[in-house]
Amino acid sequence: MKLRKTIPIRIGIDLMGSDTAPEDLYRAILQLLQDDFPAEIVFFASEEISGELDASLSIVKCSQVIQMEDDPVMAVRRKKNSTLCQGLQHLKEEKIDAFVSAGNTGALLLAAKTTLKTLKGIGRPALLALLPTKKKEVAVLDVGANLSIKSEHIVQFAAMGIAYQKSRGIENPTVGLLNIGTEAKKGTPQLQEAYLKLDAMNRDGQVFAGNIEGKDVFHGDIDVLVTDGFTGNVFLKTAEGIAAFILEQLEASSREGSFSHLTHELATLRSRMHYAEYPGAILCGVNGVVVKCHGDSSPETFIHGIKGALRLVQHSFLEKIKAQL
Amino acid sequence: MKLRKTIPIRIGIDLMGSDTAPEDLYRAILQLLQDDFPAEIVFFASEEISGELDASLSIVKCSQVIQMEDDPVMAVRRKKNSTLCQGLQHLKEEKIDAFVSAGNTGALLLAAKTTLKTLKGIGRPALLALLPTKKKEVAVLDVGANLSIKSEHIVQFAAMGIAYQKSRGIENPTVGLLNIGTEAKKGTPQLQEAYLKLDAMNRDGQVFAGNIEGKDVFHGDIDVLVTDGFTGNVFLKTAEGIAAFILEQLEASSREGSFSHLTHELATLRSRMHYAEYPGAILCGVNGVVVKCHGDSSPETFIHGIKGALRLVQHSFLEKIKAQL
Repeated sequence: MKLRKTIPIRIGIDLMGSDTAPEDLYRAILQLLQDDFPAEIVFFASEEISGELDASLSIVKCSQVIQMEDDPVMAVRRKKNSTLCQGLQHLKEEKIDAFVSAGNTGALLLAAKTTLKTLKGIGRPALLALLPTKKKEVAVLDVGANLSIKSEHIVQFAAMGIAYQKSRGIENPTVGLLNIGTEAKKGTPQLQEAYLKLDAMNRDGQVFAGNIEGKDVFHGDIDVLVTDGFTGNVFLKTAEGIAAFILEQLEASSREGSFSHLTHELATLRSRMHYAEYPGAILCGVNGVVVKCHGDSSPETFIHGIKGALRLVQHSFLEKIKAQL
Repeated sequence: MKLRKTIPIRIGIDLMGSDTAPEDLYRAILQLLQDDFPAEIVFFASEEISGELDASLSIVKCSQVIQMEDDPVMAVRRKKNSTLCQGLQHLKEEKIDAFVSAGNTGALLLAAKTTLKTLKGIGRPALLALLPTKKKEVAVLDVGANLSIKSEHIVQFAAMGIAYQKSRGIENPTVGLLNIGTEAKKGTPQLQEAYLKLDAMNRDGQVFAGNIEGKDVFHGDIDVLVTDGFTGNVFLKTAEGIAAFILEQLEASSREGSFSHLTHELATLRSRMHYAEYPGAILCGVNGVVVKCHGDSSPETFIHGIKGALRLVQHSFLEKIKAQL
């Protein structure tokens, strides 16, 4: 950490390719810098946008932008000079310490895999999101990187989730497998296979807590929830959707008067439930710190993603995850 | 409906095989009957329990019970005289008009398929649950009957969901496909295939509203949400889990005093969120009205399931679904 004091942490920001206007994002980050944010920001912006930014800032002008609707494979192949690809290239060359983007998820995953390479022992990088529960927070992965996987990838997700929670200071993280019942035989043949493989982790002490249903995840008894990227994405978005629904219902009551003092309570809960308040989703399993924010992130949630990326660098997340794997 | 006035509706109840004690369930139903419930109840009970019931009631004594942990295939084959199998047999023989069970889901599905047979055009029966949203309620299917399916089954689920919503009085129900993004190309190859098949339904007017993400389902813009049984089950249980989590957090605040007048509001929301407050899950696609309650249903939620079954019979759900398919 001594090194960090002399050489500031540099965080690369993809200003382009999300549903948020680059200008709005830029203004929010300027505000962050004025508030003594303890890191340097490197902006990756299109040539057009670059001209409008304060020239005293670190700006990497890029001639291309990967759009949300672009095919990831084609985009990564043909848009090497996009903000997304250039950001990852800078990360690889250690010109920045972390990269934050709200752009095309598929392109970010593919470019991160090809540019940064996957960590030893990891077949498929995964997106990790941290969710609140009644007790401690649970790390959920994969929340959208891989739609179809093999059972051994689930075991790798477990290892990455454990490493992540250890980097957060949790000594003996436990893992649950998202399933539709608790018995070992529940779910698809693939999940039954994953159950057996995860169960083998318990030879060296209790790590795998078994299958867990969506309704029980929020009791907070496990530290890591593993699942494929399709189910994990549905899980995450459903949790967000129902939380927003309930809170809006209560806020409507609150506005009607009698619950007006509830507003603060609701606002707190609402911000806890929106996963972008956490570091966005972390791309685990590649050789670099990459944070993926929602495509429709507000500038505020994007700022949370930047702060989350800073914390990951400050807490040597990448080094810890490598040591654990 | 004239016939119904002279011959009372008869609802069969599986007293056995759930996590609720048969005695507790029996007492709750007795209370329901004392409250002038407009249907006759036929109890399916083990020989042991039967002896303790009021002999003036309709009781079918069964020598076997299918347990939660029983293998469905073996149980249905070997326990023909179980409460679950006998209930479905009585339904087939029209000795009862509906059957309600909180027992082994796999066994109930299999026995229903083999005893009652599937409806014309339906390859796979599905479990349907009704969920609250900001606007109208959404019928979600499949919530757990089929873990792996083909895209044509999703189209059948859509047809059943539409038929169900029409039986509830909704004139032109719209259908959404649960996915991880709205674009047609999102999700697994199977979902992309299902998208195209559902899209073909729009030749006769707007029916298919496209892909929908978990977070948007609760906006209430669609009437039917279709998905495979694994994803649907995760969706349903996650919705329940997060709802319980948020409401408990708020109730804790409420107990602390300043939100005490929120209690009623929270209780209402809580009951709206627990899907067993609705008719439990309806087994759609078999030739009979079968309602599946949670395995861990409280007697109160089971009672809601019974009331739901009554409504389905009163509103000629089965006849309407047959006419629609």
